[in-house]
Amino acid sequence: MQEFDVVIIGGGPGGLAAAYGLHGHGLNVAVVEKDLWGGTCPNRGCDPKKILMAAVEAQGRSEALQGHGLTSVPQIDWRASMAKKRAYTEKIPSGTLEGLKTAGIATFHGTASFNTDGTLTVGEDQLNAANWIIATGQEPRLLDIPGKDLLRTSNDFLDLDTLPADITLIGAGYVGVELAAIASAAGSRVHLVHHNRRPLRAFDGDLVHDLMDRLTAEGVDVKLDTDVTAVVAVDDQYQLTTASGETWTSDLVFATAGRTPAIDDLHLARIDVVTTPHGIAVNDRLQTTNHHVFALGDVVDRPQPKLTPVAGYEGRYLTATLTNGAADPISYPVIPSVVYGKTQLAQLGVTPAEAVAEPEKYHVNDLDLTHWYSYQRTADPAARIKVVVDQESGNIVGAAVLSSEAEQVINYLDFVIQNHMSTADINQTILAYPTLASDLTYFN
Amino acid sequence: MQEFDVVIIGGGPGGLAAAYGLHGHGLNVAVVEKDLWGGTCPNRGCDPKKILMAAVEAQGRSEALQGHGLTSVPQIDWRASMAKKRAYTEKIPSGTLEGLKTAGIATFHGTASFNTDGTLTVGEDQLNAANWIIATGQEPRLLDIPGKDLLRTSNDFLDLDTLPADITLIGAGYVGVELAAIASAAGSRVHLVHHNRRPLRAFDGDLVHDLMDRLTAEGVDVKLDTDVTAVVAVDDQYQLTTASGETWTSDLVFATAGRTPAIDDLHLARIDVVTTPHGIAVNDRLQTTNHHVFALGDVVDRPQPKLTPVAGYEGRYLTATLTNGAADPISYPVIPSVVYGKTQLAQLGVTPAEAVAEPEKYHVNDLDLTHWYSYQRTADPAARIKVVVDQESGNIVGAAVLSSEAEQVINYLDFVIQNHMSTADINQTILAYPTLASDLTYFN
Repeated sequence: MQEFDVVIIGGGPGGLAAAYGLHGHGLNVAVVEKDLWGGTCPNRGCDPKKILMAAVEAQGRSEALQGHGLTSVPQIDWRASMAKKRAYTEKIPSGTLEGLKTAGIATFHGTASFNTDGTLTVGEDQLNAANWIIATGQEPRLLDIPGKDLLRTSNDFLDLDTLPADITLIGAGYVGVELAAIASAAGSRVHLVHHNRRPLRAFDGDLVHDLMDRLTAEGVDVKLDTDVTAVVAVDDQYQLTTASGETWTSDLVFATAGRTPAIDDLHLARIDVVTTPHGIAVNDRLQTTNHHVFALGDVVDRPQPKLTPVAGYEGRYLTATLTNGAADPISYPVIPSVVYGKTQLAQLGVTPAEAVAEPEKYHVNDLDLTHWYSYQRTADPAARIKVVVDQESGNIVGAAVLSSEAEQVINYLDFVIQNHMSTADINQTILAYPTLASDLTYFN
Repeated sequence: MQEFDVVIIGGGPGGLAAAYGLHGHGLNVAVVEKDLWGGTCPNRGCDPKKILMAAVEAQGRSEALQGHGLTSVPQIDWRASMAKKRAYTEKIPSGTLEGLKTAGIATFHGTASFNTDGTLTVGEDQLNAANWIIATGQEPRLLDIPGKDLLRTSNDFLDLDTLPADITLIGAGYVGVELAAIASAAGSRVHLVHHNRRPLRAFDGDLVHDLMDRLTAEGVDVKLDTDVTAVVAVDDQYQLTTASGETWTSDLVFATAGRTPAIDDLHLARIDVVTTPHGIAVNDRLQTTNHHVFALGDVVDRPQPKLTPVAGYEGRYLTATLTNGAADPISYPVIPSVVYGKTQLAQLGVTPAEAVAEPEKYHVNDLDLTHWYSYQRTADPAARIKVVVDQESGNIVGAAVLSSEAEQVINYLDFVIQNHMSTADINQTILAYPTLASDLTYFN
């Protein structure tokens, strides 16, 4: 039996933030990882996805300026994009493990499983700890339809040697939409299928509608209200059938309909940790129903978006909680979400839908940005923002943005909201002109 | 004689900000413009310049990704770029004038000249006012060398029907550097000449050196320590001669060696307004030596950079001063400056040079960014930042940045500095990941 102050299960961004934080405070820490050190984000998530997106964005900018100053559109070289991605991801697991070892943090590789006496088994090793942090994240959700074993996941997509001429993505959540944007830009015929009329349901409906229009204009075959009921292999392809009887064939089919908490191996019931279909139940101190067991990141059943910086924030919170005994409930800053692509969709703070529900409290400005200087300059094909302003303070408290640079706009607004700035306060700053940020002075 | 509460001479961004502000407070206001309504920025400055820059930036992004996911580089179509620019600028003068008239602000078009009795003559009109604001800006500086009449200015460049195969720019200030970036990207052979070894002297020397390396790599013939002594027409070209006896020919030659205050027509001495070679002398309330005459924007002899948002800020300050009698000295927020191009150079707050001079007060982090995620992702050919941190507070107080997206980085840091955020405070925000802004969490 090996004894630790804290054992962290999951070597992704959240677990690592906690591991380094707790180790830095002198605690005896171990990290357990069953798969790739570094976790989903750097190996199979945000980082590699956005490396592939670099060529997509650059192509998008050139496309928009056709007839407005540029001739010809650069083509995407899938193999080179993938080589660039791999040059990045291949270093992650060994580099992460090396970092932990160099720091003096114990590491265990293998599937972790709790025992009824509260200890943990990882392969040949038995671990015990005063406190535990579960940070195992989520895994791609597999569809329960005939032919489900034929389906690939986002993990497979992000490591394709060659991109097939025709692919289908089942599920238009942010993973499906982003992979559609990448594959379509790289020359694949893409079918993006969603079971109801409301893809990306966490985002503003009007802007999602605009985004679907853009994807369609980029050549994506967007199929809403479409339930895939079966997949069968036909020669070298896959044939899909829907509830309404429609069929088509694709070279590859990916299940992109959400992700599920990675908790099955852990046997959490043995240590009285309650779980739900959405993950591990925690209180507002990230404490599970077993008071020595904490959870953070994507594996947690909480309303915060499942995002890398949220997991890191929670890792730092647990570091503080487990070292200085402070047990203030966790309080989150505003959390931006972005769907990347040639056209990006981003959201932050109070949503337009929440604002509309409280008209005495909030005002929503719904602005078509395509005629604004910055968007006219880059010939942005679709740019729109909904800015939520608090009636009493005049502060900007939320926004939903669609544009080729929504990630930048939402980050500017993150600073604005985080610092409780009113539109008048923005006018008291001097921003580089003319830029996306200097446009914020027009949000009155 | 027409009487006004305030007459503003100069219908550019600063004058207009004051005009609308004062008019909005019920004052009887007139604006005088001798040239294009709207002034330099929207007609012949920042706005049209950066419209032409859109194609340059998009090309730069594609170039960087050659071999990293993109094949072929889009070419710049000068005529289409210029058509796009003109579609923007052609509406400016009439739109500006229309706006003033619709608002009910008096307008006069013509050269303004003060009389010894303190009144103003504009063509046939005689104006008198309780207070005056001079906002006439600057004009391109003409070189005093043999052949000076053969030289074009930035005004001419920004309206070229066709771009010649070979051009020379005399003066590597920000105008020269930006025009060099545009012309070179559009396929012209560019000679960029600077009289000493220190172009862009308001910017960090190391980063300027890196930028000159980038311009050279892009194909610009950068000639430092080079004094042009004469220009002569030879056939359809122009031959330049330098102090060291070097000669070359170019299709067109542009004087880009700075700008001078546009005050010659005003006869300011007649109303006891003191001027210097750098413009109109004002106190810290923007008041000239004649207490009824104020000045703002580029025409003023003050250390602030000559930038559109600075003029607007001063226009709002004078609105407050002249309406509520408040006469607090003007206090500026931090002011970012950007040199645009495929590689951008930006600066804000305490400069690295100022910081190095006070080592007990400041610390400078000089970071090569090319291996950082965001810059690796876009294959940014040159990315570097110097971050100035106040030793006592831990706050970021200044920065100098070189990267293809320096304008964004410097605007993020503008919010950071303006809100007195420490590096620890940045870690308490959650920014969209992975983005340029989320990289700020590494500035420790």
